[in-house]
Amino acid sequence: MTDSTESTEPAVGAPERRPGGRTARVRAQVLDAVRAELAEAGHEGLTVEGVAARAGVHRTTVYRRWRDVGGLLVDVIAAAGEMDWQPPDTGSLRGDLTALNREIQESLVVRPSFAVALMAASFHSEQAARAQTRLWADRYAQCEILVERAVARGELPVRGARGARGATELDARSLLIAATAPVYHQVVLLRADPDPRLPERAAAAAVLAAAAGAFSVPRTEGA
Amino acid sequence: MTDSTESTEPAVGAPERRPGGRTARVRAQVLDAVRAELAEAGHEGLTVEGVAARAGVHRTTVYRRWRDVGGLLVDVIAAAGEMDWQPPDTGSLRGDLTALNREIQESLVVRPSFAVALMAASFHSEQAARAQTRLWADRYAQCEILVERAVARGELPVRGARGARGATELDARSLLIAATAPVYHQVVLLRADPDPRLPERAAAAAVLAAAAGAFSVPRTEGA
Repeated sequence: MTDSTESTEPAVGAPERRPGGRTARVRAQVLDAVRAELAEAGHEGLTVEGVAARAGVHRTTVYRRWRDVGGLLVDVIAAAGEMDWQPPDTGSLRGDLTALNREIQESLVVRPSFAVALMAASFHSEQAARAQTRLWADRYAQCEILVERAVARGELPVRGARGARGATELDARSLLIAATAPVYHQVVLLRADPDPRLPERAAAAAVLAAAAGAFSVPRTEGA
Repeated sequence: MTDSTESTEPAVGAPERRPGGRTARVRAQVLDAVRAELAEAGHEGLTVEGVAARAGVHRTTVYRRWRDVGGLLVDVIAAAGEMDWQPPDTGSLRGDLTALNREIQESLVVRPSFAVALMAASFHSEQAARAQTRLWADRYAQCEILVERAVARGELPVRGARGARGATELDARSLLIAATAPVYHQVVLLRADPDPRLPERAAAAAVLAAAAGAFSVPRTEGA
């Protein structure tokens, strides 16, 4: 999700950037301000004026480049996608998923939580919702490597050769969702106190289910 | 969604109700209006005036009984909790969890979705969030019977007698969350198109994990 394309007419939420230049500096200041405002006051408290004041830039600068609160939200989500994030690599699927879940839980329980504020915003802004959906899709796609590595290490059952009758492959995305969904569910929807054992337990349950063939699908499916 | 229970000392948001009486009728009209407004315009569009107009009652009636939008939200969630809802009973844990997931997915994908509007509201109203947390807790508690029945039928591993060394019991709530969380995750957070196979797949994965011991905890834990 990089947006450092050259354009003479920058699109809303994707201003032209020259790394290290004034444009990049202003964007960094403004997006830092959006994150701080979101985390403090949530989506409902977000205004172009508040962001401009906190960023120390003129509000016409913000209006010109991001147009409105929706444009700011889209760009802050795009910036999250530009982060140089790498999925964990601990040597086992259970370890990787546990590390991933710990990272997720941490981002959800920290107060104020930018991640929760973004989710709340996505209920109210179609623009933010679409940007966030892309970010989730990217992150889960990045994490498929965890499942591929586990298959390569022989940790998970994959039966038969490509195209063989009865051959199966793992539905990596379903496995990843099964492993991570309980953490979001407990913290975001059930608002339970964060359980320090949950990241590992949810990871372990998904690995046991995978080992029992829960996420194996016929290789021909969808082909 | 029936909401005709008796109470002698009504709390805010839970006005005195005489089944069939005027009070009950007004409450039913007002809560129907809240649900309709929520589903159409979301939490942000909810106003006492709009609810009163749609319900065909005077707005002072609404102000007096429910005080504000927060009171309306709390009562509409309370009314959902008063529904005579019964967990499914299909004869197998996998069948029960599949039926439960289908019901959940249906409530989330119907447009407009009252369930999604309530979730959105809970991000912005602390009162609504607390009421919703109680509702979730009640529903999961009600569903523990699914796991108890499965244990009684011998579908799930429970080792040893109460108090015996190495004895385990099933953490029913964790199993229920593992089974249902992926449905919410896909539809509410990832905003993926509803997958008609997901209710059964998520149920099956949780049952496989449970059979492999994923939700077995030492019986002494927490005792």
